[in-house]
Amino acid sequence: MPLYALMLEYDGAGFVGWQRQVNGLSVQQVLEEAAAHLNRGAPVASVVAGRTDAGVHAEAQVAQIDLPRDMAPATLCAALNFHMQPHRVVVLQAAVAPAGWNARFSAIGRAYRFRILDRRARPALLAGRVWHVPRPLDAAAMHRAAQGLLGRHDFTSFRAAACQANSPWRTLDRLDVTRCGEVIEVVAEARSFLHHQVRNMVGTLKLVGEGTWPVPRVAQALAACNRAAAGPTAPPEGLSLTGVRYPVDPFTE
Amino acid sequence: MPLYALMLEYDGAGFVGWQRQVNGLSVQQVLEEAAAHLNRGAPVASVVAGRTDAGVHAEAQVAQIDLPRDMAPATLCAALNFHMQPHRVVVLQAAVAPAGWNARFSAIGRAYRFRILDRRARPALLAGRVWHVPRPLDAAAMHRAAQGLLGRHDFTSFRAAACQANSPWRTLDRLDVTRCGEVIEVVAEARSFLHHQVRNMVGTLKLVGEGTWPVPRVAQALAACNRAAAGPTAPPEGLSLTGVRYPVDPFTE
Repeated sequence: MPLYALMLEYDGAGFVGWQRQVNGLSVQQVLEEAAAHLNRGAPVASVVAGRTDAGVHAEAQVAQIDLPRDMAPATLCAALNFHMQPHRVVVLQAAVAPAGWNARFSAIGRAYRFRILDRRARPALLAGRVWHVPRPLDAAAMHRAAQGLLGRHDFTSFRAAACQANSPWRTLDRLDVTRCGEVIEVVAEARSFLHHQVRNMVGTLKLVGEGTWPVPRVAQALAACNRAAAGPTAPPEGLSLTGVRYPVDPFTE
Repeated sequence: MPLYALMLEYDGAGFVGWQRQVNGLSVQQVLEEAAAHLNRGAPVASVVAGRTDAGVHAEAQVAQIDLPRDMAPATLCAALNFHMQPHRVVVLQAAVAPAGWNARFSAIGRAYRFRILDRRARPALLAGRVWHVPRPLDAAAMHRAAQGLLGRHDFTSFRAAACQANSPWRTLDRLDVTRCGEVIEVVAEARSFLHHQVRNMVGTLKLVGEGTWPVPRVAQALAACNRAAAGPTAPPEGLSLTGVRYPVDPFTE
């Protein structure tokens, strides 16, 4: 019974998030129902590296499925993509997983990118893909403030109330804020993130960017270990899961 | 009665194209109806630099409108954007046009970008924004072939039957094909283009990219001055109007 690793791309707009919900269509449901077609209709379970929220996109999500038959990875890819139509999710790559590999627990790094469209006019082409902030933001100040969050900390101030993680301690490896024209990109990398952590950090950095907060207040908000000390949660549509790292990359054979 | 220059961004997917049609919503209709709100409901006419087809996007289209009242450009911008909701079109900039300026006839350069997604899996995030070509294309060969189209020529071979231009002669200043990962970009610049010229050139270059045509056949197709000698028309969704040049830029004051 081979275990397959899948790399997925999806537009979060049409989904209630990765995880199955009673109130709408999830990416997990679309994937598992497509996989069931390859399993004589019997249910197929999946495990995912990053359980993205409703509206959050993925450029390179990684999931695993068990299938009780051997399929060439390219055939599996094409078959899943056929059955997942017309939903905005596709398998980019498939591979037979290395022994003992798990999409979630073997992951040693997750990378996210958050995009802000910083201009007066609402987005026409980037609608649903960016957080539209009409007032000018100081991206350099946001970047300086972001550096105060790097390293190993109790991230309670940036953790959603609904977060199910056992510990609020996380190690943030990268939080870079750069401007490219009217788009500001925030790139975040860590072994793992708390629920809403990236969006809460971005919502807080935006307060610095607009001048409401001085740069040092972000580090103070972190030290407070109190969700009320940090800024609001940025909206999901600006966020994309851009990559997952493993000690052995299942997709390079 | 001031003449205003407008720079517009739109997602071509929701429109029958720039120009008003009886069979659906055009960008022109959305703009002119929004402008009529600022003119006590009286009709407002617009002129545009590039009459894009259905499905073709614009990042920096330029149009003009006459309004019998003086408005600060920023106010005009905000008011038009308010009235154009929820359609996927926005005014990025507005300016009082220089004397004698015309959005269409003063333009001395148009730039388009065509994007091909060159990978097996259909697009999830770029759906409606790219031409999906599942087989691998040789972008370097496409670029070499493209250089044979530069300069002043009779472009009859790349001209739509419905083209209303008086002459099939055009001067192509730039036609660059570059690959960035799985996306191939074709950038085309000229004073003006014939109807479907960019899409017909891209559809022809794709034959070179997939190996169906040798590189020199593109220049031969041009020399034939016969639409049947060139390749098929690439689909509209890969195409974006990215800029319009004027001897005096109306937006820099």
